[in-house]
Amino acid sequence: MSNFIQTLNDAWQRTNSLLCVGLDPEPSKFPGALAGRADAIFDFCREIVDATAPYASSFKPQIAYFAAHRAEDQLEHLIAHVHAHHPGLPVILDAKRGDIGSTAEQYAREAFERYQADAVTVNPYMGFDSIEPYLQHEGKGVIVLCRTSNAGGSDLQFLETGGRPLYQVVAQLAADRWNASGQLGLVVGATFPKEIEVVRGIVGEMPLLIPGIGAQGGDVQATVSAGRTANGTGMLINSSRAIIYAGKDEDFAQAAAKAAMETRDRINAFR
Amino acid sequence: MSNFIQTLNDAWQRTNSLLCVGLDPEPSKFPGALAGRADAIFDFCREIVDATAPYASSFKPQIAYFAAHRAEDQLEHLIAHVHAHHPGLPVILDAKRGDIGSTAEQYAREAFERYQADAVTVNPYMGFDSIEPYLQHEGKGVIVLCRTSNAGGSDLQFLETGGRPLYQVVAQLAADRWNASGQLGLVVGATFPKEIEVVRGIVGEMPLLIPGIGAQGGDVQATVSAGRTANGTGMLINSSRAIIYAGKDEDFAQAAAKAAMETRDRINAFR
Repeated sequence: MSNFIQTLNDAWQRTNSLLCVGLDPEPSKFPGALAGRADAIFDFCREIVDATAPYASSFKPQIAYFAAHRAEDQLEHLIAHVHAHHPGLPVILDAKRGDIGSTAEQYAREAFERYQADAVTVNPYMGFDSIEPYLQHEGKGVIVLCRTSNAGGSDLQFLETGGRPLYQVVAQLAADRWNASGQLGLVVGATFPKEIEVVRGIVGEMPLLIPGIGAQGGDVQATVSAGRTANGTGMLINSSRAIIYAGKDEDFAQAAAKAAMETRDRINAFR
Repeated sequence: MSNFIQTLNDAWQRTNSLLCVGLDPEPSKFPGALAGRADAIFDFCREIVDATAPYASSFKPQIAYFAAHRAEDQLEHLIAHVHAHHPGLPVILDAKRGDIGSTAEQYAREAFERYQADAVTVNPYMGFDSIEPYLQHEGKGVIVLCRTSNAGGSDLQFLETGGRPLYQVVAQLAADRWNASGQLGLVVGATFPKEIEVVRGIVGEMPLLIPGIGAQGGDVQATVSAGRTANGTGMLINSSRAIIYAGKDEDFAQAAAKAAMETRDRINAFR
């Protein structure tokens, strides 16, 4: 049984990279050579994965982009490809699921048995019993939304409760009560570096998945300073569109590799 | 272009039923005659739908139960079957999605274009810009989690902010700021009838999807009294397991029909 947290720590050390490459495939943005191929989504993502793997410590496919195109089978193949060809680089299925226990069991089966993901993102709005079924899958990672990178994230997450904003309460619950099995991580957007710092203070060494440094404009230096742990790791810093669509033509994979390398280096400059 | 809210109001009047039959198919609970069939999930649900349609005003398939078994195609066929054979009974895809705008666009496409659902459930934790892309699909319904029926629902939803619990703030946001297009509904669990009453007071005539009266044990009389609108409708009262698993043998569809009829009548006794 693989252990997500251990695999992730090993990957951070071995690859000397905190970069998580986000896989949000949109066929309308693919280079012309892929147009019309039956497995274009798989082919595009596989080329991105193979080209960027030397500069990444994890991959994060976003399931909506596959589901909107009836491409669940291509997502299965893609994750199997990562495991077969890039062992030791964990795959986080970005699904942001959240439902009552009996339904959460089904979602956990989807993520961990069907897709063989190493970790999955989940939503905390329905509370701990909506998160617990994922933790029954020994060694798998469960990454809970805490402070998201979108503007609307403040609508609820910034509401004050008990003298502090809701997202800090979620971080505290995750740290104090929900993480007995040591499988949790948190999502904290790079658009709010000061908030990353507060969350890091609450959760100790817990891994933070940090979207928002690419197309969403987050500041790399501020993010790394705010989120790193004592050994200079602790973060899955995600970039999706800025890497996978760095090039638009036949050279898209090389362009993605270059963007991944540069992003890794920008992150490492501040570790 | 069908309009969910209008279709729902028409269905409540025409069928004289507030019952929403939840479709949570678990192959391990199917009668023996279905075992081993390639399309067992579709076959089971289709029989349930055809048997219970005379007593229901809507159907709610829960996508996790299909996704865990690679049965997305069966879900597509099932929703197409409802539209073809039971026109005027809206289908709510229970998916509880929640993500940033660009990803929400993909989930909206999944729900409304791929599955042809009339409405979808969504999670409010990421705020209004995570809900807005669904509203771009004219006439479709968007049902936002407010107060959920599980025990852990209180972990966040009952936190006090601005002098009242978070779920009431969500109801107020939905009523005052998120519903300009008139497409919204809210999920409020039947396990908390007093809270249904408070939410009804905040949101006026907005439809409430109310799970929890069946296997989860909510009180029908208290639920109906708390949630009805002036004309005795306004609620999609959902029962899943107590109806679809009412029988275990060959007669499962008749048993489901009987359970659906009795549930409709119990509800109507208090309208």
